[in-house]
Amino acid sequence: MNSSTSLRVRLPVLVLVFEVVMIILFSLFVTYDDNANARLQNNETNPMENSLYRDYPYFADVQVMIFVGFGCLLAFFRFYGFSGMIFNFLTATFAIQWAIVIQGFFQFYYDGKIHLGVINLLNAEFACAVVLISFGAVIGKTSPVQLLVMALLEIPMFSVVEWAVLKYIRINDAGGSILIHLFACYFGLGVTFVLYRPSLNKGHSKEITSYQSDILSVMGTLFLWVFWPSFNSALTLKGDDQHRAILHTFIGLSSSTITAFALSAVFNKRGKLTMADIQNVTLAGGVTVGASVDMMISPVAAYVLGIMGCTACFFGYRYLTPFMARHMRIQDQCGIHNLHGLTGLISSTAGICGILLATEETYGPSMYQIFSHRAPPVGHPKLLELQKLIPGLKPGLGRTAQEQALYQVAAIFATIAASAVGGLLTGMVIKLPFMASPSDKDCFDDDLFFDVPSDFDRGHQALMSFDEKSQMSSIDTKEVSKSV
Amino acid sequence: MNSSTSLRVRLPVLVLVFEVVMIILFSLFVTYDDNANARLQNNETNPMENSLYRDYPYFADVQVMIFVGFGCLLAFFRFYGFSGMIFNFLTATFAIQWAIVIQGFFQFYYDGKIHLGVINLLNAEFACAVVLISFGAVIGKTSPVQLLVMALLEIPMFSVVEWAVLKYIRINDAGGSILIHLFACYFGLGVTFVLYRPSLNKGHSKEITSYQSDILSVMGTLFLWVFWPSFNSALTLKGDDQHRAILHTFIGLSSSTITAFALSAVFNKRGKLTMADIQNVTLAGGVTVGASVDMMISPVAAYVLGIMGCTACFFGYRYLTPFMARHMRIQDQCGIHNLHGLTGLISSTAGICGILLATEETYGPSMYQIFSHRAPPVGHPKLLELQKLIPGLKPGLGRTAQEQALYQVAAIFATIAASAVGGLLTGMVIKLPFMASPSDKDCFDDDLFFDVPSDFDRGHQALMSFDEKSQMSSIDTKEVSKSV
Amino acid sequence: MNSSTSLRVRLPVLVLVFEVVMIILFSLFVTYDDNANARLQNNETNPMENSLYRDYPYFADVQVMIFVGFGCLLAFFRFYGFSGMIFNFLTATFAIQWAIVIQGFFQFYYDGKIHLGVINLLNAEFACAVVLISFGAVIGKTSPVQLLVMALLEIPMFSVVEWAVLKYIRINDAGGSILIHLFACYFGLGVTFVLYRPSLNKGHSKEITSYQSDILSVMGTLFLWVFWPSFNSALTLKGDDQHRAILHTFIGLSSSTITAFALSAVFNKRGKLTMADIQNVTLAGGVTVGASVDMMISPVAAYVLGIMGCTACFFGYRYLTPFMARHMRIQDQCGIHNLHGLTGLISSTAGICGILLATEETYGPSMYQIFSHRAPPVGHPKLLELQKLIPGLKPGLGRTAQEQALYQVAAIFATIAASAVGGLLTGMVIKLPFMASPSDKDCFDDDLFFDVPSDFDRGHQALMSFDEKSQMSSIDTKEVSKSV
Repeated sequence: MNSSTSLRVRLPVLVLVFEVVMIILFSLFVTYDDNANARLQNNETNPMENSLYRDYPYFADVQVMIFVGFGCLLAFFRFYGFSGMIFNFLTATFAIQWAIVIQGFFQFYYDGKIHLGVINLLNAEFACAVVLISFGAVIGKTSPVQLLVMALLEIPMFSVVEWAVLKYIRINDAGGSILIHLFACYFGLGVTFVLYRPSLNKGHSKEITSYQSDILSVMGTLFLWVFWPSFNSALTLKGDDQHRAILHTFIGLSSSTITAFALSAVFNKRGKLTMADIQNVTLAGGVTVGASVDMMISPVAAYVLGIMGCTACFFGYRYLTPFMARHMRIQDQCGIHNLHGLTGLISSTAGICGILLATEETYGPSMYQIFSHRAPPVGHPKLLELQKLIPGLKPGLGRTAQEQALYQVAAIFATIAASAVGGLLTGMVIKLPFMASPSDKDCFDDDLFFDVPSDFDRGHQALMSFDEKSQMSSIDTKEVSKSV
Repeated sequence: MNSSTSLRVRLPVLVLVFEVVMIILFSLFVTYDDNANARLQNNETNPMENSLYRDYPYFADVQVMIFVGFGCLLAFFRFYGFSGMIFNFLTATFAIQWAIVIQGFFQFYYDGKIHLGVINLLNAEFACAVVLISFGAVIGKTSPVQLLVMALLEIPMFSVVEWAVLKYIRINDAGGSILIHLFACYFGLGVTFVLYRPSLNKGHSKEITSYQSDILSVMGTLFLWVFWPSFNSALTLKGDDQHRAILHTFIGLSSSTITAFALSAVFNKRGKLTMADIQNVTLAGGVTVGASVDMMISPVAAYVLGIMGCTACFFGYRYLTPFMARHMRIQDQCGIHNLHGLTGLISSTAGICGILLATEETYGPSMYQIFSHRAPPVGHPKLLELQKLIPGLKPGLGRTAQEQALYQVAAIFATIAASAVGGLLTGMVIKLPFMASPSDKDCFDDDLFFDVPSDFDRGHQALMSFDEKSQMSSIDTKEVSKSV
Repeated sequence: MNSSTSLRVRLPVLVLVFEVVMIILFSLFVTYDDNANARLQNNETNPMENSLYRDYPYFADVQVMIFVGFGCLLAFFRFYGFSGMIFNFLTATFAIQWAIVIQGFFQFYYDGKIHLGVINLLNAEFACAVVLISFGAVIGKTSPVQLLVMALLEIPMFSVVEWAVLKYIRINDAGGSILIHLFACYFGLGVTFVLYRPSLNKGHSKEITSYQSDILSVMGTLFLWVFWPSFNSALTLKGDDQHRAILHTFIGLSSSTITAFALSAVFNKRGKLTMADIQNVTLAGGVTVGASVDMMISPVAAYVLGIMGCTACFFGYRYLTPFMARHMRIQDQCGIHNLHGLTGLISSTAGICGILLATEETYGPSMYQIFSHRAPPVGHPKLLELQKLIPGLKPGLGRTAQEQALYQVAAIFATIAASAVGGLLTGMVIKLPFMASPSDKDCFDDDLFFDVPSDFDRGHQALMSFDEKSQMSSIDTKEVSKSV
């Protein structure tokens, strides 16, 4: 119908070109990781010690989070369920492929090849999560072409920042609070700043939920909630570190959840619960424990972090998101700044505290494994001593706790700055005319990009009947800000 | 609107007080389990042998059951989907936190501290399952405040009974048929006895399902079905015991499922299938194999147990639940007495048979591991002999099979008595006036505790239109009894 | 109402007879696998090396695919959601039980007993997947009695073919492209050929989707997508083989998914996306990599296979399925010929190429493990040499690559022929009069076999209102062909 948003040429051309590029890059550069290479197996290889068995369970859990969890969570709009779920599916698949190659060059490249194992897929899913979080800022007002182009640009920027921070600044960030959540948040805000649509500040008639879409979205929340411990612990050291990461994430989510219910009730003028709070604010604890998730912060600290993150997130939704939309041209559709930005900042701060408070008394010699940059450098006599206690210990940089804390601060600012600039640039690119961007009127509407079944329109017309309209504006518009 | 059920003060105050208590208890008493404590790792620790890798897969599966499985299953009412799913989420999170501390004092307390590992979380999820099963008896007629208070009281009572039975009576109950299912059932019946609402015996206009709610509830059933083998085997001994537990649970569920379809068709006067049967009765086999799930009962016994449990459960729904509602003041909303009580009793009996029939010929020396209380006591010459065959064998109590069987009987009666009394007391507490209990008219209605989207009321009004009313009462009221 | 389709006698009698047979067979023949047998454990057994821990994670993933993934995917019809999901549940449970015994006789039978472990359940789930794929061809026009009889006949035929092919022809087919997908496809086509209903070629007013059913079906797709790597790798050798199987499956699915989006847009005349494509065609890559999934085909080959399979599948839906329905009496309701047949053929061809191109240079000595039939036979001097390099290597048949390729071709033709004949015979049986087959008018309607809630009919009447009818036929009938 609407030729300016028809996907008939744009999407296939973009995909086709991408696939040709991928085939070329794959054939030139991608080979198997040693653990997936038949030729490297010999009579000393124990198949059950293949890295697959360490990585695959976490990969599978993260897969459920990315495709089912995010997919359902983003299907919260009444007339935008197809789009939320399906664009998530498309963008995620596209972003993972791209990340396999781009991240591969930065992290898994040697002997002239990217070495591919499940660990790359796991890392690529984290890069993909970055894109999906940013997507949350612009959901409802972007075409799939814009989303793919966003992924195309965000993945390399993220990979560069990730590589630079890990390689040069060297930080502790097991749960990805800085690299994943802060990057994703400020990138998304940068994009949405450029895509600012003044008319949407007055609200949109389709920016509402339905009974079924709210339930679907809660299912997404539950899948994210259930597997978040795997997400936060997937890339920690094995053993007690990973064990703590799982405990802290569960505790943080748990205290965050009951706090979200309490705040939801106390700030609702009729003392009822609001679904948007339950769908989003409950998850804040998972982000907030991220940067210190593998440290010996004690269980009570994880509990308190969950409450703090949840509280910041809740008030962010209530006051900051509307403020930014009205006064700063930042329309943060899902409130990613609350669930990933504010919580990410708290988490980063907690991580710094964790670093400053870490002592050998608490950690024993394994302190130099967790805080690997504090390990003595090559040739230092203490290194040899420590290596007797922990045979596999790698030499570090001999940083003090205070030095490491400063590097963390540097990484936080560098990440925020780089991601915001990257988001602004990306926003400019996807605002270009041939990106199939929907008109203001067509936002939040599946009909624009999907052949919808016959009962879709019927629901729509019913909504527009007179007696509903009044009710709608008074009740539902509160529910428009949601987050991933 | 309705100030007596507003959650604005009650829920936040309850949560706030609870969080303060938790923070105090956590900071005073909760530390890391040895497997999560960095200081205890040394050069002899193999990270891949951390208990995490034995416990976490089962924990993750049980998480899906608790949050997604139960959540969807309990969303079966047409106008109560939000409440079913969300109150499950809130109650589960709250109960797990509470159980971490309370169970922790009973089971993981030494050196003045509760030692926290994933194994505690797993145990706490089982305690949480107890609360959620009991919740099934009173769903639709309780406020979230009542549910939290119920969890607050039920968790300590359960922990005491669990501790006393395991420590003093000492029983075999790998799948938790006695401690989990029977306790949860009779506790829930005790609560619902006190909360008796005579007017609901005539049925309630909102006590119906919808097409979507039925599908959602079946999804819950499927998630429970799929992961039930993990639930029943999570706390068995590792190795062949856990292997058998998984086989028996799968077989029992499987025979139970096809039996449920057959019974559903034969007792429907038009020869059709009833969704409530499929949502609940199919699961009976999972409970029925519980008490003997790790024994060498033979695969065919698991098959027959599934059929028996299913049959008892089906007829319970058909005859016993209405009878108890009418004549005993026990309104068992989800029919937990059928799915957890009757099946739990069959399972307990099967467990006793399994104990009586166990011989060294069938089990080999590992009989004294599975039936650990039958192992010879310290100093007994046979113990030394057995320890040569099974190095890790712990001394037992030297009980005969018959003695052990009597202890099992004692545990069954003690559990039922304690839980029923506990339930009655809890019912009295949550019947107190400031608990935001809904009026009879407002039962089974999300609108009472949730800001509902605009299409919620529309559905509701449509239902109340004249031509629907007649149909409703004739068809749907059959579907009101469901279970967790 | 309709006595000819009442399940009141037929279904219970069938289930009862089946259960009696099962109890007899279980008690006579089924015992525990060595890994689940307490008596065989001794002081040299390491419980953590029990086969359970190698098989259960894959089994659990496949369970989710079978019950949740297939269940949701098959619930895509607007008035047939209960049936799609519930008949899948019933048929799957029934088929797995039956396969445990029948496959057990062929594959796990020794010392006069079927030895039951989780590995049997895993194999039985694959046999069950065969039945569910075939079910896709006849969904909407079969009764549960017909489906159970189909399972009753298909499982033994499949088990015989599987056994004969693996034992006598001996092939490489790690992902089951030949034995699972091709068998299931041509069996299903055979059945639907016999069940041909000319009147349905004109379309059926209920052969449509709804907004909610489309979303539910996508959820099924996502669960299948997420766990497909586990499906394809469950039965490979452990270690690097399984690692590659997971990588290839992920890559194949991934390229297949973005291709499906591109093709969907380019062939839609308004440039929109079609849900049926996303629900089905995205999955084509998972099948296409199957036969070569554990070989060293290189990552780029998996990528290209995903694109090829997706393209074949897409055009199959567009041109071949309508053609077969009109001109060949083959009404393939879900288009299984596209998603399992065409892709299976491509996959088989790719498997043959993989075999022909395999060299010791690429694989090292482990080539003789993956291509076990190429290993030297007993007594051959090269065998001893190889066994020094790979201690556990079993003697093979000394086939050359070319010989093995010919055996693969033989297996493909034999499987297709046997399955088509088996399907035709099965179709004749389930066409017999007492099978509760629905009339043409009652196809695609839950009301025939289920007590439906009161809002079911309402939706139905609304659909039939005049203003909807016109729209319906123009938009929705495109969406009728879907696949499993």
